[in-house]
Amino acid sequence: MKRIAVILSGCGVFDGSEIHEAVLSLHAIEQEGASWHCFAPNVDQHHVINHLTGEESPETRNVLIEAARIARGQIQDVAELNVHQYDALLVPGGFGAAKNLSDFALKGTACTIHPDVLTACQAFANAEKPAGYLCIAPTLIPQIYGSGAKGTIGSDPDTAHAFNTMGGEHIECPVHDFVLDQKRRLLTTPAYMLAGNLSEAASGINKLVHSLIKLA
Amino acid sequence: MKRIAVILSGCGVFDGSEIHEAVLSLHAIEQEGASWHCFAPNVDQHHVINHLTGEESPETRNVLIEAARIARGQIQDVAELNVHQYDALLVPGGFGAAKNLSDFALKGTACTIHPDVLTACQAFANAEKPAGYLCIAPTLIPQIYGSGAKGTIGSDPDTAHAFNTMGGEHIECPVHDFVLDQKRRLLTTPAYMLAGNLSEAASGINKLVHSLIKLA
Repeated sequence: MKRIAVILSGCGVFDGSEIHEAVLSLHAIEQEGASWHCFAPNVDQHHVINHLTGEESPETRNVLIEAARIARGQIQDVAELNVHQYDALLVPGGFGAAKNLSDFALKGTACTIHPDVLTACQAFANAEKPAGYLCIAPTLIPQIYGSGAKGTIGSDPDTAHAFNTMGGEHIECPVHDFVLDQKRRLLTTPAYMLAGNLSEAASGINKLVHSLIKLA
Repeated sequence: MKRIAVILSGCGVFDGSEIHEAVLSLHAIEQEGASWHCFAPNVDQHHVINHLTGEESPETRNVLIEAARIARGQIQDVAELNVHQYDALLVPGGFGAAKNLSDFALKGTACTIHPDVLTACQAFANAEKPAGYLCIAPTLIPQIYGSGAKGTIGSDPDTAHAFNTMGGEHIECPVHDFVLDQKRRLLTTPAYMLAGNLSEAASGINKLVHSLIKLA
């Protein structure tokens, strides 16, 4: 059975992992006959957003502890991720990918990636193991893969421009499809950067996960 | 398009809605061509559980605000649920159903249901509109439907006994199936009371939602 590492960034679209994307991803991995293994950085969230009002809440929450909600407790610190034990990597989206895994949401093209996340993602790149990035998570790619890496965040012009400025090569893509950088074994799909509902997000995620696991 | 009301109980299996069940339910509703509309009680959670360690955390969180994470902010106070606007009801499980929607997890057969939740659920029963309850949520049924209501929580003997003691008629059921109380248009499936993974939970949930929406 192929083993897929999944890096989460909290629990909730506005300050963590997009929950629908994460659950659809885990389900798709199972449906392809593989097993999922969740990880998250052991660090405080950038902030906490009240998802009812959209306002910031005066609380502190830990990314790993909140991501454990999605994983039903089956999760480890991403610092413990040993690439040799896994066949592929998957990183769902949500603002957490751009607020907790990196600070792209705050600093744009001057962003940096959390060191434990960078180490884990680069290990998959260096081992030439396939990796999938969903939604806004592809903004991590230029720093992980170096210049020329192909990917999509859908069609948002500002984010696409930032992706290119950081050294990537952005390719527009509809929600029901994904972009493959064959040389780097790198897969990306817009998910909720474009999706209007779960079914639209699932259409691209299921295709991406099918190809990710075939490549693994 | 049929409109399905979904009552959530927080965000996380140990103190709120079981996230996989909730997301699989919303996705199944879309796949059946219907629309989902989330609700939750505007009340503090019974407690907050650190899902990494399983320990209680000294925090206070609101059920409606946390459930909004699953609904991407598209959620209303269950006190505002007007049965005339919806064709069916669905209540996912997770400990939140037995800690926040009722206090079954604490008081067993002497439990009471949050008054706004009771009013909403009884409105569907009285209007003879179909309703589905997943996982541990069927423990709400005896107080909503009165004695003789048929349902399943899978096969856990203590919970099944409690269901019968409260006036229900428990029927054992495997994870990939559901129980239909035809007279009451009431559907139940074990989900994570028995499921070992997402795919097992989905097998029963998808069947239940298909029948729920056919009945609606």
